[in-house]
Amino acid sequence: MQSVFSHRSESCACDMTFAVFTPPQASSQPCPVVWFLSGLTCSHANVMEKGEYRRLAADLGLIVVCPDTSPRGEGIPDEPGNWQFGIGAGFYVDATQPPYATNYRMYSYIVDELPRLIQGSFPADMERQAIFGHSMGGHGALTIALKNPERFRSCSAFAPICRPSVSGWSRPAFEKYLGTDVSAWRPYDSCALVEDGQRFSEFLIDQGAADSFLVDGLRPNEFERACAAHGLPLTLRMHYGYGHSYFFISTFMEDHLRWHGRALSASTPA
Amino acid sequence: MQSVFSHRSESCACDMTFAVFTPPQASSQPCPVVWFLSGLTCSHANVMEKGEYRRLAADLGLIVVCPDTSPRGEGIPDEPGNWQFGIGAGFYVDATQPPYATNYRMYSYIVDELPRLIQGSFPADMERQAIFGHSMGGHGALTIALKNPERFRSCSAFAPICRPSVSGWSRPAFEKYLGTDVSAWRPYDSCALVEDGQRFSEFLIDQGAADSFLVDGLRPNEFERACAAHGLPLTLRMHYGYGHSYFFISTFMEDHLRWHGRALSASTPA
Repeated sequence: MQSVFSHRSESCACDMTFAVFTPPQASSQPCPVVWFLSGLTCSHANVMEKGEYRRLAADLGLIVVCPDTSPRGEGIPDEPGNWQFGIGAGFYVDATQPPYATNYRMYSYIVDELPRLIQGSFPADMERQAIFGHSMGGHGALTIALKNPERFRSCSAFAPICRPSVSGWSRPAFEKYLGTDVSAWRPYDSCALVEDGQRFSEFLIDQGAADSFLVDGLRPNEFERACAAHGLPLTLRMHYGYGHSYFFISTFMEDHLRWHGRALSASTPA
Repeated sequence: MQSVFSHRSESCACDMTFAVFTPPQASSQPCPVVWFLSGLTCSHANVMEKGEYRRLAADLGLIVVCPDTSPRGEGIPDEPGNWQFGIGAGFYVDATQPPYATNYRMYSYIVDELPRLIQGSFPADMERQAIFGHSMGGHGALTIALKNPERFRSCSAFAPICRPSVSGWSRPAFEKYLGTDVSAWRPYDSCALVEDGQRFSEFLIDQGAADSFLVDGLRPNEFERACAAHGLPLTLRMHYGYGHSYFFISTFMEDHLRWHGRALSASTPA
């Protein structure tokens, strides 16, 4: 059952929408929860429509939660026409700078508020959670997993923004959300988190070699170097001919769901 | 490989766009061709993005062709704001009435022109073809199969418009495309074609029981009665809780591709 819900969010001080897929197994037992965080310009709907996750999530018995990417609605500060900042571009941070600090609190929303709502409203086994995402949502998945390794048994990403403190499309957003002191950016930069000693069991990253955002925007090789230097297991697969779109995501969705399914079906955390 | 092409169409006297998926097998041998005809308001893109056909089409070695639903572009007569007529609503007929007869020739485009282009441009085994579609495209698949039973080894439909001569959303369009003499409508009405003696090997139809267009717009039970009265095999599956959307299509896409795959892999026409 694919559903979409709206609710009043305390974290973001606005109404928020999210999608939840519940597999047939959820009618008789609690099921593990897989979080999918989406990329720039997306809402909860893009991966729900184009991600091709339902067939296998039903087979594997996974609840799939797809949140929105930012606060949204009238009165939310935004830069209309700038798709790399504001609405649709929350970057999964808790903004500290006015006027964004009131609403742009996507880290708290994803890590604290929405899990409580999921736990209270769905047959979810919160002892078994995994997280993945695409692009800006891949950045969200990597950073949230690195900061909450006890919560997530597995983490993967499609074309994640690996070094947002440096990339051209994220650096201006970080400055507006978090201020000019770049030390405050490190908790939201997966490379910096690894360099600063955060740990995680193992990562899977798929990246299209024909992705036009690869060199400046995504920088998976910088994450690869950081993981190698600090002994974190990473499988990084560069796929010839693939770009940044949902065609890329849907092609490899099965591999990611099986990756999470294996970790989540183990009786103890992987 | 999912591709999209544009070309100058003689039939429609405008540029037309279509999508083609070629499976890996096509690099070494001709592959069977499955045609998917889309519904009202859709272009080639909707099923390409939301239909979830690529994984299994790759496994089964099927070329999947997804044409547009009407002529399109500047200068094409249209009724802006009317989603049930004109651009996005070609109904797979050859219009006979001015000003539509010049461009709205989707029957000839799908049955004559585009197959020649596919045959000449792709590693397609045109001796092995199947056809299916959704809603208006289900009507197109049923009528085209009934009129060309020697060409298609199999035919199926998601929520097809079964009695377009009568349904509220198609009758005004038929009048504008084909004139007020309703006898000219019968070759484009699947129930009428069966009543008039056309034959086909076997049909598969999936229909959502919660589809808001079911009673007036789609009328599968009238097609069921016509098939029963004339001895045409039909499997009609009414699915509890499903509506008219691509979530319905993607849920049952696998069954339809396997249905066609079985017919197309047989050494002689099924």
